[in-house]
Amino acid sequence: MGLTRTQNFTVSLDGFATGEGQSLEAPFGHADPSRLMQWAMQTRSFARTHGQVNATGTTGIDDVYASSFDHGIGAEIMGRHKFTYERGPWSDPDWRGWWGDNPPFHTPVFVLTHYPREPIEMEGGTTFHFIDATPAEALAQAKEAAGELDVRIGGGPSVVRDFLAEGLIDIAHIVLAPVLLGRGVRVWDGLESLEERYDIEPTSSPSGVVHLTLTRKP
Amino acid sequence: MGLTRTQNFTVSLDGFATGEGQSLEAPFGHADPSRLMQWAMQTRSFARTHGQVNATGTTGIDDVYASSFDHGIGAEIMGRHKFTYERGPWSDPDWRGWWGDNPPFHTPVFVLTHYPREPIEMEGGTTFHFIDATPAEALAQAKEAAGELDVRIGGGPSVVRDFLAEGLIDIAHIVLAPVLLGRGVRVWDGLESLEERYDIEPTSSPSGVVHLTLTRKP
Repeated sequence: MGLTRTQNFTVSLDGFATGEGQSLEAPFGHADPSRLMQWAMQTRSFARTHGQVNATGTTGIDDVYASSFDHGIGAEIMGRHKFTYERGPWSDPDWRGWWGDNPPFHTPVFVLTHYPREPIEMEGGTTFHFIDATPAEALAQAKEAAGELDVRIGGGPSVVRDFLAEGLIDIAHIVLAPVLLGRGVRVWDGLESLEERYDIEPTSSPSGVVHLTLTRKP
Repeated sequence: MGLTRTQNFTVSLDGFATGEGQSLEAPFGHADPSRLMQWAMQTRSFARTHGQVNATGTTGIDDVYASSFDHGIGAEIMGRHKFTYERGPWSDPDWRGWWGDNPPFHTPVFVLTHYPREPIEMEGGTTFHFIDATPAEALAQAKEAAGELDVRIGGGPSVVRDFLAEGLIDIAHIVLAPVLLGRGVRVWDGLESLEERYDIEPTSSPSGVVHLTLTRKP
């Protein structure tokens, strides 16, 4: 049976994973994703993924995390705001999300929304399913789709928070970036005393981020 | 000329340095200081400071920080709530604060309050001065008292935050503890884009904390 994991989920030092004012042009709101995600974007594997065959880039701990993003993952669950800026009923049936024609997931992706719609099949193995479900219900569907593989809880912050609060994540890899966003959506809210239910192991990287591994206690 | 520093200032992963509901019996409010400060309390130097001559305890990075607490410090600035739980006018002139007869500061300590009162001289070199001053004014007084030595900005969270916001701290050592307090007083609020003014270096410890060093850019 696969595990339920969060990977490479990056949070500012003050606890925000998305800034304020998300829009079509600004998926992270006022936050600059190239600063928040700099640790990943400067790795060798990121450059290779983006087509640079003789890619240079960092090759240490950040690269290991960046390159293992899709190892063993059979399905993802994400919040609606990782797919679109829109709230309420869907207005444009032809818009297929922020992730381009060939999204980096390559598995079924379950998008949590109060407005279910038909699935969208993309290139490269990603199919977006739009479901109105509790975290536990969504996880049951995703586990069935993933088979023996793991399910990734992909964010955004309120989704990671909800799944942690219910103890549904087995291993959460959360990256603290040395950036202060000041405002936006917090990941740690409502998780008082989480350390009683999860072991928390920090590992600092020369890039300035801290890789946190939260492992659910038996 | 001395520097202005913060040392061993410990914050939960979700950014709180004091819990909710501070009172005479609960200086940290609902937060359990023995969990927040565990990294320091389990060091060899902490045990020695508390009278255990043949003390055992951790001897790595946590111990280095714990043992260097008073090296080169000539004065401290603290917020009133690091001295007392009381708000408003002072009610009990005989109560001399939370820190016992021989407080661990051994220097002049400037307590920020809107209710100035006569200084209190303690054993061991600590004298509490109660001043109604802006951060810059308080720092000028503390620097004069410290002479060639450094001034410690001792907290609580709103004091550290105010001094960081005004760029008055040269080097801030802030410890992230693997604990989620959930509520209380946040240290990071209002410090958006602080990384543009401070270099932020994290170092993880086997104890599970992360030592952050914030150094003001030239």
